[in-house]
Amino acid sequence: MTPTYYIMSPKNQKVKDVCALQQKSKVRKEKKQFVVEGRRELQHCIDAGMKVQCFFQCPELQDEETKAMMEKMVGKVELTAEEVAQTHHTKEGVVVYTVIPATYKHMVYREGTEGIAAVVKAVYRSLEDLQLPENPLLVVVESVEKPGNLGAILRSADAAKADAVIVCDPLTDLYNPNVIRASIGAVFTVPCVACTSEECIAFLKERNIQILTAQLQDSHLYYDTDMRRGTALVMGTESTGLTDIWREAADAHIRIPMLGKLDSLNVSVSAAILLYEAVRQRENREG
Amino acid sequence: MTPTYYIMSPKNQKVKDVCALQQKSKVRKEKKQFVVEGRRELQHCIDAGMKVQCFFQCPELQDEETKAMMEKMVGKVELTAEEVAQTHHTKEGVVVYTVIPATYKHMVYREGTEGIAAVVKAVYRSLEDLQLPENPLLVVVESVEKPGNLGAILRSADAAKADAVIVCDPLTDLYNPNVIRASIGAVFTVPCVACTSEECIAFLKERNIQILTAQLQDSHLYYDTDMRRGTALVMGTESTGLTDIWREAADAHIRIPMLGKLDSLNVSVSAAILLYEAVRQRENREG
Repeated sequence: MTPTYYIMSPKNQKVKDVCALQQKSKVRKEKKQFVVEGRRELQHCIDAGMKVQCFFQCPELQDEETKAMMEKMVGKVELTAEEVAQTHHTKEGVVVYTVIPATYKHMVYREGTEGIAAVVKAVYRSLEDLQLPENPLLVVVESVEKPGNLGAILRSADAAKADAVIVCDPLTDLYNPNVIRASIGAVFTVPCVACTSEECIAFLKERNIQILTAQLQDSHLYYDTDMRRGTALVMGTESTGLTDIWREAADAHIRIPMLGKLDSLNVSVSAAILLYEAVRQRENREG
Repeated sequence: MTPTYYIMSPKNQKVKDVCALQQKSKVRKEKKQFVVEGRRELQHCIDAGMKVQCFFQCPELQDEETKAMMEKMVGKVELTAEEVAQTHHTKEGVVVYTVIPATYKHMVYREGTEGIAAVVKAVYRSLEDLQLPENPLLVVVESVEKPGNLGAILRSADAAKADAVIVCDPLTDLYNPNVIRASIGAVFTVPCVACTSEECIAFLKERNIQILTAQLQDSHLYYDTDMRRGTALVMGTESTGLTDIWREAADAHIRIPMLGKLDSLNVSVSAAILLYEAVRQRENREG
């Protein structure tokens, strides 16, 4: 059957609310809500135990995997005309709004997000909430400017199984749609904390976690540095690098050798190279 | 003095020609020309010996470094009203068009490109043109889809001083503005070749360069693999990975361990991790 839709115009207030959450950090903070779009991202979000407040689905844009995901949650996806004319609920009682493709596209940032988005309750962790193992591996990012870079760092931090990503003096919030998109949902799988640089340094010092700052001046080659003990890899901003407070707090300054004609790597690429050196050293602990 | 401009409307034919080169791969190939925007990118391009065919400058948008660069090439930048009413030439006789900010912004892809752009003669290298040292380090990218990823790979290849980047069966051309932008000009500092996978495999086999394919199945951990001999690191597409022709041609399959919940890294991040493992092994050759 061809599904009929509960049509919702882009001017509908609920759609406008979603757009405001997508576009404005201030609105996200005030409402303590944000938007997740895309099947994989949403699955990671739900798996992490975050609370969905409502779904927006567009069956016409859903692939088989997304339909199966919705079916698991809502009961079924192929709806009769009468059913779609009403509002639906998931098994847990969360409202599901069905929208037409044009409205869905108006609400989301990324093309090809499989016709599924949700408004989710934001959780803001503090340093005290972090549960760290012995010899943790942390990434600290100071004042990162580009949401895409923060997202990419989170993705690599998940892959390298870092224990947390700490964002100091953030210029972008964790629930910015471009952070979620670039992280492919790793913002939900890796514990993330936002705090000040001072708080973070005190936290690391207290727990005897070594601070390795990525910087070119006065530094050792990163692969000559032991990362097997508790380690925080600290990255500066794309434009100006690390501030003095971090350079002075460092146990060691480390650098990735720049062997060509350009003078820098992308900050997310640098983070990945350092993280995987820590993985290599830790896996080869006996070697 | 306030400079007066040789005003050029966005409808001017020269401006239209630049826009066509920016937007269309087909036009770039037919005309064997492309556009470079931004001071750093252009400096790398000129340093690499590529031939600029004309400049477009917008003095109002230029910072001091860019003005100094233009002064070196044109003679001076502060022009009288009569001077700017004419067309200028660099010392080598290349035409410099001065445009108003609105027109400049219409021509370029990136904000903040320092008010300088140029049309450059394209050079298409073949495998036979590559001059490789003993034990070269190469990156091979099969059918990369996103220009931004290709650019990011080039940037890391420059930093790790890879001897060449070979793009097989390309879906994007090397002179796509987003490749140049994401590479920050590394597309000019690293020798790049586009060819078919068959040609590339024959070339590598002939020169006894080991083929290491990045793939998760049937693979060794990348840091357990010796990369000190002549090595080609082969990366697949973002969506479907490597084709069988590469898997079968491989001397070894290598994988970056995925230790978290996500199932993949960005292709440019993977390339950087593998490249820097080669750097580490080669620097520690005695160790």
